[in-house]
Amino acid sequence: MDIAFVLYPNMTALDMVGPYDVLGHLPGVTAHFVAATLEPVGADAGLRLVPTTTFADLTHADVIVVPGGDVTHELADGTLPKWLAQVHETAKWTTSVCTGSALLAEAGVLKGRRATTHWAFPELLTDRGVEMVSERIVRDGPVMTAAGVSAGIDMALALTGIEWGDDIAKRIQLAIEYDPEPPYDCGSPAKAPAELVAQTRAVLHA
Amino acid sequence: MDIAFVLYPNMTALDMVGPYDVLGHLPGVTAHFVAATLEPVGADAGLRLVPTTTFADLTHADVIVVPGGDVTHELADGTLPKWLAQVHETAKWTTSVCTGSALLAEAGVLKGRRATTHWAFPELLTDRGVEMVSERIVRDGPVMTAAGVSAGIDMALALTGIEWGDDIAKRIQLAIEYDPEPPYDCGSPAKAPAELVAQTRAVLHA
Repeated sequence: MDIAFVLYPNMTALDMVGPYDVLGHLPGVTAHFVAATLEPVGADAGLRLVPTTTFADLTHADVIVVPGGDVTHELADGTLPKWLAQVHETAKWTTSVCTGSALLAEAGVLKGRRATTHWAFPELLTDRGVEMVSERIVRDGPVMTAAGVSAGIDMALALTGIEWGDDIAKRIQLAIEYDPEPPYDCGSPAKAPAELVAQTRAVLHA
Repeated sequence: MDIAFVLYPNMTALDMVGPYDVLGHLPGVTAHFVAATLEPVGADAGLRLVPTTTFADLTHADVIVVPGGDVTHELADGTLPKWLAQVHETAKWTTSVCTGSALLAEAGVLKGRRATTHWAFPELLTDRGVEMVSERIVRDGPVMTAAGVSAGIDMALALTGIEWGDDIAKRIQLAIEYDPEPPYDCGSPAKAPAELVAQTRAVLHA
């Protein structure tokens, strides 16, 4: 089982590393880190990640994981959406976390599908003719999209349950001790006070 | 505010990237990725991360974050524990995730302190004279230790609340959409069936 974790400049590292540390330890999995070139890729808070292959060289993967982050350049450049359109054709699962779904939308992968993205950026989907669904994980056939950043962990565990079975998924959840205790009850816009939502949206769009 | 995220071979990437994507976006923070050399460091499921500085060059940080993973080599080698003992002296906060606390114990940082680690590896603390506390986050003065892997996200948000204030911590929690929906209720040994705990422990110790 080949899993392609997509890397691009100004991505949010946790969007990718959450799913990676769920899926990357599964039996029979080979993890690929695919980017435009083999040069290290800088994430949006300074961490640099090393690709193992390039969009030109990796033409198939069983599972594709597209992280979010600042997708402006990748949407304008078009190379990554074009690659996604191609690899999606033979992939078993095409997945995204956070604003990574905008890249799937740009690639045409979300045409006629239900999908989600980070709560503060619904326009990245709606501008591309895709309706934004406010759920943490949205599955539509072989496409699974997750809400913002940390939702990638939930998505990868859900995918593990479907593809590898509940027993293995439960083992992974226990292995990463995923029994969350968030310090505040404000992790989604439905739960947060309106002022906090407005402030956070403003900071994220700055 | 200088934050040192420690990198070493066979670390678990999520242990570091969870706290990094909470703390790394805070106002006034400079993130440093510190390792033995400037060569990329391979995590335990294949992802390679690029250091920005070395143990020899970074002699002070306000916050230190030590991830877990396979700590066997680092405990035996001694370079990292020695560095931790030194930088802890002037740090405002010394923190660990998962088995990273074994490196703090080896460094003497946990002497007389309450601390936790991954549930499957209590001996890494008890063998070093430190009692294992079965809590998700344990604070003792300027030292904060977190349970396995994903607990680093909770720890970093808690630290943000103490050091930067609740308002900013809430904003970060909402920005990373941290409103977890784990697919199973088995993320800690207290909640998981005994057979699952035994199986998972066996796999982790293999």
